[in-house]
Amino acid sequence: MQYQDILNTIQLELISKKHTGKVATYIPELAKIDPKKLGIHLYCINSGHYYFGDSNERFSIQSISKVFALTLAMSLYSDELFKRVDVEPSGDPFNSLIQLEYENGIPRNPFINAGALVISDMLISKLANPKKQFLEFIHKLTGEQSIGINPAVFNSEKAYSHRNAALLNLMKSFGNIKNDIQTVLDFYIYQCAIEMSCEELAKAFMIYANGGKKLSTNDQILNPQKIKRINAIMQTCGFYDEAGEFSFRVGLPGKSGVGGGITAIHPGQYAVTVWSPILNPKGNSELGMFALERLTTLTGYSIF
Amino acid sequence: MQYQDILNTIQLELISKKHTGKVATYIPELAKIDPKKLGIHLYCINSGHYYFGDSNERFSIQSISKVFALTLAMSLYSDELFKRVDVEPSGDPFNSLIQLEYENGIPRNPFINAGALVISDMLISKLANPKKQFLEFIHKLTGEQSIGINPAVFNSEKAYSHRNAALLNLMKSFGNIKNDIQTVLDFYIYQCAIEMSCEELAKAFMIYANGGKKLSTNDQILNPQKIKRINAIMQTCGFYDEAGEFSFRVGLPGKSGVGGGITAIHPGQYAVTVWSPILNPKGNSELGMFALERLTTLTGYSIF
Amino acid sequence: MQYQDILNTIQLELISKKHTGKVATYIPELAKIDPKKLGIHLYCINSGHYYFGDSNERFSIQSISKVFALTLAMSLYSDELFKRVDVEPSGDPFNSLIQLEYENGIPRNPFINAGALVISDMLISKLANPKKQFLEFIHKLTGEQSIGINPAVFNSEKAYSHRNAALLNLMKSFGNIKNDIQTVLDFYIYQCAIEMSCEELAKAFMIYANGGKKLSTNDQILNPQKIKRINAIMQTCGFYDEAGEFSFRVGLPGKSGVGGGITAIHPGQYAVTVWSPILNPKGNSELGMFALERLTTLTGYSIF
Amino acid sequence: MQYQDILNTIQLELISKKHTGKVATYIPELAKIDPKKLGIHLYCINSGHYYFGDSNERFSIQSISKVFALTLAMSLYSDELFKRVDVEPSGDPFNSLIQLEYENGIPRNPFINAGALVISDMLISKLANPKKQFLEFIHKLTGEQSIGINPAVFNSEKAYSHRNAALLNLMKSFGNIKNDIQTVLDFYIYQCAIEMSCEELAKAFMIYANGGKKLSTNDQILNPQKIKRINAIMQTCGFYDEAGEFSFRVGLPGKSGVGGGITAIHPGQYAVTVWSPILNPKGNSELGMFALERLTTLTGYSIF
Repeated sequence: MQYQDILNTIQLELISKKHTGKVATYIPELAKIDPKKLGIHLYCINSGHYYFGDSNERFSIQSISKVFALTLAMSLYSDELFKRVDVEPSGDPFNSLIQLEYENGIPRNPFINAGALVISDMLISKLANPKKQFLEFIHKLTGEQSIGINPAVFNSEKAYSHRNAALLNLMKSFGNIKNDIQTVLDFYIYQCAIEMSCEELAKAFMIYANGGKKLSTNDQILNPQKIKRINAIMQTCGFYDEAGEFSFRVGLPGKSGVGGGITAIHPGQYAVTVWSPILNPKGNSELGMFALERLTTLTGYSIF
Repeated sequence: MQYQDILNTIQLELISKKHTGKVATYIPELAKIDPKKLGIHLYCINSGHYYFGDSNERFSIQSISKVFALTLAMSLYSDELFKRVDVEPSGDPFNSLIQLEYENGIPRNPFINAGALVISDMLISKLANPKKQFLEFIHKLTGEQSIGINPAVFNSEKAYSHRNAALLNLMKSFGNIKNDIQTVLDFYIYQCAIEMSCEELAKAFMIYANGGKKLSTNDQILNPQKIKRINAIMQTCGFYDEAGEFSFRVGLPGKSGVGGGITAIHPGQYAVTVWSPILNPKGNSELGMFALERLTTLTGYSIF
Repeated sequence: MQYQDILNTIQLELISKKHTGKVATYIPELAKIDPKKLGIHLYCINSGHYYFGDSNERFSIQSISKVFALTLAMSLYSDELFKRVDVEPSGDPFNSLIQLEYENGIPRNPFINAGALVISDMLISKLANPKKQFLEFIHKLTGEQSIGINPAVFNSEKAYSHRNAALLNLMKSFGNIKNDIQTVLDFYIYQCAIEMSCEELAKAFMIYANGGKKLSTNDQILNPQKIKRINAIMQTCGFYDEAGEFSFRVGLPGKSGVGGGITAIHPGQYAVTVWSPILNPKGNSELGMFALERLTTLTGYSIF
Repeated sequence: MQYQDILNTIQLELISKKHTGKVATYIPELAKIDPKKLGIHLYCINSGHYYFGDSNERFSIQSISKVFALTLAMSLYSDELFKRVDVEPSGDPFNSLIQLEYENGIPRNPFINAGALVISDMLISKLANPKKQFLEFIHKLTGEQSIGINPAVFNSEKAYSHRNAALLNLMKSFGNIKNDIQTVLDFYIYQCAIEMSCEELAKAFMIYANGGKKLSTNDQILNPQKIKRINAIMQTCGFYDEAGEFSFRVGLPGKSGVGGGITAIHPGQYAVTVWSPILNPKGNSELGMFALERLTTLTGYSIF
């Protein structure tokens, strides 16, 4: 089957697919999103772009931003980065406070909140203007200068950030946060509030499928060795407490966000982003996981 | 570089490599092994066999047997298997008693002891003669009829099996063990006491690299869909609490055992087994991990 | 108010008292008990016996037996006993598997199952005929030779003992169980299956109110120093995860069992036992706790 | 023996007693204290004052202040207080973050940090000028108007308060903190920085020995029912993870602080405070515990 045929098949299946999940409700701004939104954008190294539905509409990327933050941090730091954050799956639904306790303030990996907060802290230590430079990095990856944050989401998340403040304070008590807690929290929330479309995310994630090079310009954004490591972390840690399930069913490295986006890559082949705001009980897009499972089944290829 | 050149390079590096780990000592029989033992066997789909060192000497496969047990169980059961054991990484160094408590006796995955004990229980429910049939399955995969267990290791492990008995009793209290506890424990220990060489393990693991087919005979041992799922579980759960580190450094699905063996596969390319009994603090072969990291670095290929 | 007047008042209050709990159902034999059973026996050092209701009917003493086991063990061992079991409250509803893990197989106190299993193990090491001698100890405390076990409860508990077997195996893996696991389990279950009436329990517990002396014979069963320590452990650990609540509401050292019995003592004043099989969510007799709270309120005296 | 003879005996024993602990070092101000400081003040209902050593020198009362805070809060709130903080021992050395997670932000008891922070929050909701009124309450209990805080300790603790800030943020995420986090933290640290002597603490704690009445004036500070409950909580929760050990060895309700103070009461008999800054591994005064154990042994009386 051709890629466009496969996407068409998946689109038909999605229309009739029953779902049981719900849109994220922990902040009012996310709860307002139309649950029927649905889009996919597939960006292939050899054959270009395929898509359907709301693939051009921007949504809150939320935790998908953690991949960009890690990538930027790995361009600024060497292996010392992994002394402050580990690369093991967390296996823990409790937002990691418990493991932080046992493991002396070293977060399990950069894709749980605690780990992303440490990465934010490290970026602040190196960047003169963290918010601006973070956004510029995404502009560079996508070629889209208009990408920015949703201020309502940003403010809404600030009002519900006590758990992240607890993580920051706990890690600060272990010496693993160097900057001011409010500054780190503010920068972290800023990243989560960025809005991008499926197309823009697929373009940005192409570097992970393409050995660290931007496909359109052949710019080497990060060296291939580091890109492989990011892919490995996405594979084992990209889906909260459902990384194994995603690996088991889909078989690609990827990252999800509570805005309903999932972006995944097949090294050497493609980057793909799907958006559907209905989340399963573990916080991942229910239809998004289904769509990607169908994609690797219908193409017959996963990394396994 | 050619594969044999790469192996030669790795062999030279290993000779001068300093190590800090120790041979497993929890049972006397394993503590006796010569720590200098070292061998690799690489079995490529397109170009056959490459090896060096003690690659033909049999050693205790220990937890590597969990992959064979899962494979046999997946040939006998459908998706119901994954109602009794999950596919998530455990992220927990505490041998899983704690997570079993929280998760009502459902082990996190089939490659932690608790999960492998459930798999053993399920095999006993389906097989007339579990030990004999398990061994026959390995004979079929390898073509080697002489593979068997080390009785001294078997008896030694039986004497130190209280923690596994604790896991079994706890899971039985939740209803997730159906057969007699002593019978399950005996069968589980039997599997761990099997001895195979690097060559034999690489041959057996070829099915995971080759879409479920035995390369030499083209026999379909398990369907490709199920093979992919086993590979995904190896990727996320194959190295105790170091699965992320292995994924990060090596980038291949694999499984280790406290006997010092690690076997890994590159889907569509090769199966490889390395043996060195010196273990790092997390219980994985220290030089084995190094050797495989060098292999994917020098070939320039991992699944990521 | 006189003691008999106080008991009469409590009896009236209990009749009209609404309750929300349920009889223990984890074994069929306990589930069969008439939930309306209700009795109190108060045995005062200075003024003798007061009682009402089913105070003469024997019931399954269950965990109340742990106090007798500790007392017997403290008569056979010196301080070494408290190297194998601690004296801290457990604060953990999860039957102690987790804390055993963290604390290397040393149970938190002798009144949680893990601790009582260690005490049973220690008694087996010292007693030629543990079951017989345990029963003889209770015969001596009460002067009642006919006290024995309920065989149906004994057999029923044996069939549901996997969690205790898990605790034993885990502690054996840490070296804190010396005897055969089945033997320890069998002896522990035997103790729980003993049946006594409120009157018999109040008589037996008089030694804790009376500085270690049997009131009727003046026999010194255990020295006053050790008796005080048992009372202190009852105070902090006698009510599963509700020791604080009992201390807060009743203010006396005591011990409960899932058979619905609670026995408490006021040092220098009295021993009292109440029986009502309806348990609150934490496994303590709902009406029993109420009755004892009223007793210390109406008398105006607790240890605080 | 007379009380003064007993104190003299204890003083002699303390002089020759070897100790292995260390002064608290988590803030510089506490680390500076002379480890040889040692004093006791015993205040008996019937026979007045007995003392030796540095019993008149003020020291940082630290967590002993939690008893005053609970007392003041119980004078302002009815049973609703215990919906926001439980009365169970914590059994957990990990500063309670873990249990807060499992128990939805409800601290185990008012004497762990999390519980005391909730009590501080509740006091702020009721008091116009919390710091001033808290100090006035202590002035009333002791009759000493000069009692105040040590500003150096106050500032030092503020700089090391990230763990308490983590607790506050976590509880706020569960809705169990109503006021501004910085305000609560500031008030909590203020209480800990109060300085009192053994004599002043013994005077203040007399209300717990005397049914809620100030002995010198017969003022009823809190009703006897509530006083009993505070005593019960001191008994089960007053010594971090060593409440059982204190109950076992000393047998009195009490409260310790990392400044090296321990204050205990025998209801109807006396209040006693001991000060020695050398702490055992669980954070309680090593010589203080010894002195109080000797006191109840030599008098022959404890509550058990």
